[in-house]
Amino acid sequence: MRVSVIGGGVIDRETADTARAVGRELANRGHTVVCGGLGGVMEAVCEGARETGGHTIGIVPGPDRAAANEYVDTAIATDLGNARNVLVVLNGDATIAIDGSTGTLSEIGHALDFGRPVAGIETHDIEGIEAVETPVAAVDHVESAAGGQ
Amino acid sequence: MRVSVIGGGVIDRETADTARAVGRELANRGHTVVCGGLGGVMEAVCEGARETGGHTIGIVPGPDRAAANEYVDTAIATDLGNARNVLVVLNGDATIAIDGSTGTLSEIGHALDFGRPVAGIETHDIEGIEAVETPVAAVDHVESAAGGQ
Amino acid sequence: MRVSVIGGGVIDRETADTARAVGRELANRGHTVVCGGLGGVMEAVCEGARETGGHTIGIVPGPDRAAANEYVDTAIATDLGNARNVLVVLNGDATIAIDGSTGTLSEIGHALDFGRPVAGIETHDIEGIEAVETPVAAVDHVESAAGGQ
Amino acid sequence: MRVSVIGGGVIDRETADTARAVGRELANRGHTVVCGGLGGVMEAVCEGARETGGHTIGIVPGPDRAAANEYVDTAIATDLGNARNVLVVLNGDATIAIDGSTGTLSEIGHALDFGRPVAGIETHDIEGIEAVETPVAAVDHVESAAGGQ
Repeated sequence: MRVSVIGGGVIDRETADTARAVGRELANRGHTVVCGGLGGVMEAVCEGARETGGHTIGIVPGPDRAAANEYVDTAIATDLGNARNVLVVLNGDATIAIDGSTGTLSEIGHALDFGRPVAGIETHDIEGIEAVETPVAAVDHVESAAGGQ
Repeated sequence: MRVSVIGGGVIDRETADTARAVGRELANRGHTVVCGGLGGVMEAVCEGARETGGHTIGIVPGPDRAAANEYVDTAIATDLGNARNVLVVLNGDATIAIDGSTGTLSEIGHALDFGRPVAGIETHDIEGIEAVETPVAAVDHVESAAGGQ
Repeated sequence: MRVSVIGGGVIDRETADTARAVGRELANRGHTVVCGGLGGVMEAVCEGARETGGHTIGIVPGPDRAAANEYVDTAIATDLGNARNVLVVLNGDATIAIDGSTGTLSEIGHALDFGRPVAGIETHDIEGIEAVETPVAAVDHVESAAGGQ
Repeated sequence: MRVSVIGGGVIDRETADTARAVGRELANRGHTVVCGGLGGVMEAVCEGARETGGHTIGIVPGPDRAAANEYVDTAIATDLGNARNVLVVLNGDATIAIDGSTGTLSEIGHALDFGRPVAGIETHDIEGIEAVETPVAAVDHVESAAGGQ
């Protein structure tokens, strides 16, 4: 299935390690990563997915798909500003949130509104998010909740 | 100034009373109401604003502006689905959230991301929202935080 | 009804005179002008509509509604880039095109796709557009074709 | 490079043959096809590209990426209605238009507005489009005009 991975655009080393591990785990289990295409969690999760041969889709806010990070396989330009956040979660069957600020919060709202299962690692404490501790637990949750799509 | 009022589409009587009171208070102080144009909080706040002669803008998700509630003066159709949520908060100088579920959560995220001050009445407990008890306190907060725009 | 008026953002004096006359004629007949909110035809048609007491709506591409020209009564910011062109014609019951280049062409395509009647003055020669010579003929056409909405 | 291929959603057999040939030619020369993901020209061009091992991206208007035709490799859901037309041409470095009606016209307008080279086969007669007779000539034109991107 496709899993949208959302989170902070500027992150510390530990968060980057977590995001890379999520990317590796998703790719190992055959899932495609969808993200916002830029830096921070978006870049680290793509890097991880690519390390284990996964496919990555990056949906960027601006008009130029070349703004996508180097680990994005299929970059989609939108020029829609923050409305692109909607597309990031719409294009996954489930969502994993890692860290993140207000943009991530908007994506969590949209994901829940679309009925997508959401697992969260060190992110906003929102009803409806399954808070987990590890990348493996995050992928376990979205696999189980998305019902094998 | 313009104030975006967001909240649940299906609400109880008490919440409707609160939203109407917010609309009256905003209009009394000369502010324009911006909302998502449909029912629940969106309709009640427009009804309140109209009772005291205010102007109301409703930005609806579908392609037909006739879907707007009867208290909307200027209806804007978008046919953008949930991406219209972004426009609701972008078009206000501040936001008041009343009650609300996942759609409201996405709008809170976008409002904070745009740097809009947000007052909340009986809504999500999110860092960055000023939780207030009354319609007057909500309008006081956004007036003060938006700096007299 | 509402009439979307589209056309060039940079125009000569004669085109500005035409656009102003279209705005005056629409307002005189009680119609609201919807436009892209910026300069050229968009500004001239709003100026004309305001001269005769009409209401004007400007839907701008950027994130700041203050970018709208001074004759716009209700400015709507979108931050959607060119996707805002869709909203300009979606929000009118009919369209009048005056002059214009590629952006106007995209709006003509969307207007026809939405089934909106389109009158054109010195604009693209497209099947489905009613080519007219004067502002009065343009307003006559859209009134008649939109069926008294 | 990426080439957006646009055109009618309901087409005759000859047009389908043309679109398939365009898809084959693009894939043979190593280009990725971007389209609106649905039927008609969109489906035929993807079918052709896949016959020769090409990659295809389909950007659909609705909320469900499963609406994409079976020859789309990477489907992107938008739920943006006609605003998705903007994304179709934004995501290619050049555009080939085949047949088509008002939706295609809007995409031609957006493509020209973004400065994309446009080759047209049996489509709208618009200034700025290079009218060509064959799939090979269409691909030749966009390769040459897009400057080897």
